[in-house]
Amino acid sequence: MVRNNGIESPSPRPRIHQTHPHDTPLFQSTVSQSNLRRFNYWILIFRLSAFCFSLSASVFILTINAAAAYSPDSPRWYRFGAFRFVFAANAIAAVYSFFQIGASVWEIYSGCTLFSEYSQVWFDFGHDQVFAYLLLSAGSAGTELARQLREVDTCRANNAFCIQSDVALALGFAGFLSVLISCLLSGFRVVCFIIKGSRFLH
Amino acid sequence: MVRNNGIESPSPRPRIHQTHPHDTPLFQSTVSQSNLRRFNYWILIFRLSAFCFSLSASVFILTINAAAAYSPDSPRWYRFGAFRFVFAANAIAAVYSFFQIGASVWEIYSGCTLFSEYSQVWFDFGHDQVFAYLLLSAGSAGTELARQLREVDTCRANNAFCIQSDVALALGFAGFLSVLISCLLSGFRVVCFIIKGSRFLH
Repeated sequence: MVRNNGIESPSPRPRIHQTHPHDTPLFQSTVSQSNLRRFNYWILIFRLSAFCFSLSASVFILTINAAAAYSPDSPRWYRFGAFRFVFAANAIAAVYSFFQIGASVWEIYSGCTLFSEYSQVWFDFGHDQVFAYLLLSAGSAGTELARQLREVDTCRANNAFCIQSDVALALGFAGFLSVLISCLLSGFRVVCFIIKGSRFLH
Repeated sequence: MVRNNGIESPSPRPRIHQTHPHDTPLFQSTVSQSNLRRFNYWILIFRLSAFCFSLSASVFILTINAAAAYSPDSPRWYRFGAFRFVFAANAIAAVYSFFQIGASVWEIYSGCTLFSEYSQVWFDFGHDQVFAYLLLSAGSAGTELARQLREVDTCRANNAFCIQSDVALALGFAGFLSVLISCLLSGFRVVCFIIKGSRFLH
């Protein structure tokens, strides 16, 4: 069973770390137990929705050619750089969200975080930020490509292709929103942690 | 002279507000005066760089047709939706940064914020977030359009057009990075404010 001393990060602030594995975790002493549990459920919900939306978006992109009325001269999604970007960004976000769901469930059931508190809150917040920007960037680039495809004759020749890519982009933006809300929640967690954990701000 | 009771926002937390205009502002009592001053200078630097980069990006987009070797059949930037988006996003960010520079300078010289503390820190952080996402989205869409223009023959026919749009996009991304760092700094300010200002987290 991994307790809070599972992975210790090198830190200039030794006060933060638990000296004994069976001490109450720091974050739980900040917010009361029931608040913490409710808060963790909210995070879990948005992690789940981020996972579902990102996974659907990447599957939709991946199956454009299989699902659209196939003809040998129809455009392939992987010929377009922006669609490859959308696929990769959503796949990465889906994998990340999957592991974060695992970490959330672990925290709800065992009452302690996977890494040390300090690593966990900053890891969550940092990665949420990066993946939110990644998904937005991919979504914008993909949307611009889809708009360009409408101006040339690609969409008139093969409308199913464009409709499916639009759906994938919409799912990608929904995934972005979920990651954005997770990011705000994990930012709040960082604030809670700093209040008790850092000497500098006390 | 506008003191902290200049604009009072409706707030459920009356403790936050200053009862007398000549009280020491709340944020200044959290971090020491010299730290606060250094921190404000850092914010001012990144606001300045955000302003310069965003303004340059929008001017570069605006003058594509004037500066590039002009011919009656050369493409116009305002015919492309993504370039209009890049122009608008950068212009908005430049105007926002300009006012934020004013607010920063005011805070450094007068020692108090333009709005009430509570409004100011949340206003800064929220707007920085929104404009960072806006600039990134515009940059991504513009980059995808520029890539598409290279694939068709637009760039071979009028290379100056493409080079200037590339420079504008690069400046836009530099502006995004500046706003992103301002956003992290103003997020830190929100944390500092919450630590002293909110009853819930004490």
